[in-house]
Amino acid sequence: MKFFDDMQIGDLREIGKHQFTAEEIKRFARSFDPQPFHLDEEEARRSHFGALCASGWHTTAACMRLIVDYHKGLAAEMIARGERPAKIGPSPGFKNLKWRKPIYAGDTVTFASEVIELRPSASRPQWGVVRMLTQGTNQKGERVYEIENIAFIERRTA
Amino acid sequence: MKFFDDMQIGDLREIGKHQFTAEEIKRFARSFDPQPFHLDEEEARRSHFGALCASGWHTTAACMRLIVDYHKGLAAEMIARGERPAKIGPSPGFKNLKWRKPIYAGDTVTFASEVIELRPSASRPQWGVVRMLTQGTNQKGERVYEIENIAFIERRTA
Repeated sequence: MKFFDDMQIGDLREIGKHQFTAEEIKRFARSFDPQPFHLDEEEARRSHFGALCASGWHTTAACMRLIVDYHKGLAAEMIARGERPAKIGPSPGFKNLKWRKPIYAGDTVTFASEVIELRPSASRPQWGVVRMLTQGTNQKGERVYEIENIAFIERRTA
Repeated sequence: MKFFDDMQIGDLREIGKHQFTAEEIKRFARSFDPQPFHLDEEEARRSHFGALCASGWHTTAACMRLIVDYHKGLAAEMIARGERPAKIGPSPGFKNLKWRKPIYAGDTVTFASEVIELRPSASRPQWGVVRMLTQGTNQKGERVYEIENIAFIERRTA
């Protein structure tokens, strides 16, 4: 992770993309969201979704996986350049999670994050508070997913 | 699901409980959140969490599973009494997801939902809009998880 002091409002980065296969959609649903439209093509066709689609919680989990991989890659690059990556504090939670459109079997979603607010932590001078908006867009260019998160990122000046 | 017209603000229902085993925490993390403190006891001990704990997205997924099972049970009971369960519309998303405290390996979390707002849908008279607060409490009575959601629930008067 970049240090808080090296971030700017409007910084936009592509996190990665993920294809939601029918097999993966059903596997997630069997464990965590066993509703007919996430488990079976025929039942999904008869539902309000019209076709097999991913659990919204599968979307959040797949997005998290891409974020973790992205940060690991970034940390490895910084270490290769002889820099120390910034620490990230535990996430306190999220705001405004929006499943804008269904993600259907076979869809590929590209996730990107934008820095929308930066402020020093009032109580902990070694941390900065970063608000980010992460959005997911499918292969047709449709916005399908949106989540706002707050992260505590280490300050270079600490 | 009960019909919108049969709900009242303050209605509280226990959704169910879930024990987060070390094995399950690691399995979820390998797929969706491969950070050291969700994968390995020793690395977790050295982290800010102090012990192996569940991914926050594992918490949301486990809670969803309990909600689906709860509604299936409720629907089966209504059908057994000769009633038709109300339809639930697709969820537009969530607000204010809060991971208040870590959920450690072995913890059992009880989830409960409370109706906090009821209003008829302005645009679709067959649906009512229900705002619910779902909270998770561990075996020590500590509030560990909180999420606010909006659901579209069928009206009896439609």
